[in-house]
Amino acid sequence: MELIQIGTIETPFSESQGTPIQPAASKARGIVRIFDQYAHALDDLDGFERIWLLFWCHRAKPAKMKVIPYMDHVPHGLFATRSPSRPNPIGISCVKLEKIDGLNLHIYGVDMLNGTPLLDIKPYDPKMDAHQTSRNGWLDKVNKEKFAATKADKRFQQP
Amino acid sequence: MELIQIGTIETPFSESQGTPIQPAASKARGIVRIFDQYAHALDDLDGFERIWLLFWCHRAKPAKMKVIPYMDHVPHGLFATRSPSRPNPIGISCVKLEKIDGLNLHIYGVDMLNGTPLLDIKPYDPKMDAHQTSRNGWLDKVNKEKFAATKADKRFQQP
Repeated sequence: MELIQIGTIETPFSESQGTPIQPAASKARGIVRIFDQYAHALDDLDGFERIWLLFWCHRAKPAKMKVIPYMDHVPHGLFATRSPSRPNPIGISCVKLEKIDGLNLHIYGVDMLNGTPLLDIKPYDPKMDAHQTSRNGWLDKVNKEKFAATKADKRFQQP
Repeated sequence: MELIQIGTIETPFSESQGTPIQPAASKARGIVRIFDQYAHALDDLDGFERIWLLFWCHRAKPAKMKVIPYMDHVPHGLFATRSPSRPNPIGISCVKLEKIDGLNLHIYGVDMLNGTPLLDIKPYDPKMDAHQTSRNGWLDKVNKEKFAATKADKRFQQP
């Protein structure tokens, strides 16, 4: 199972310190530059307000099975968190697609580091992806305001 | 960028023909069997009603840049579809977590083939993942009933 890079995500964030922890907590814009050979795969993407970006967290530390996430003060099992340091450091971010200009996707709500390798793009559709849930584990204790205000620090970044 | 398998997803579906096209169109149950070394990473996951599974679409055909998706009759750019045949054939499915029994996750709403290699588990949280959108491209033409009734066929599966 080998991955190939299909593009690069350009963002204002060169270090994890101060980077938004999730697209929902980000007001930052970025540009996804898609490699030439995937030009035709972008057809019809501009009809979608939101898209999923799958990317390789290229500067994340190796995974630990228990971590203290940004939004809490006690350790949780890694798979109960969205830490970028994972056995397979794949990030999924649902960003707003503002414009497509040739091979460049202009996006809003970026939460990844500048230069992040892009792996995949999928359309976001609420019929598939939006679910109201009644139990969201430890994340239920975090209020929306705190969620939107919290920034990342260096804990998961390779020195 | 090399991936490692962290578990295996067991489902009732041995062929793509007849498999639900998305978790939202599935009433089928499955079991995710996690490998031993990740046991502690499951701590606290049982508080979450829904989880993201990231998996390797191990029986998907090689990617084509334009495809006719299950829900339409005309071709669309690959990245505007959720076809499993992609440059990096990674699937993301938001399933219901019904029970954790040791290293086995009992899940509802499976849409992947039996034996699918698991790559990652993330908690689903509506604060991060649920968005109401006003434009969902060609998928806006598909009604919810049709969406839930459609099953996959062999078009994206390796012979």
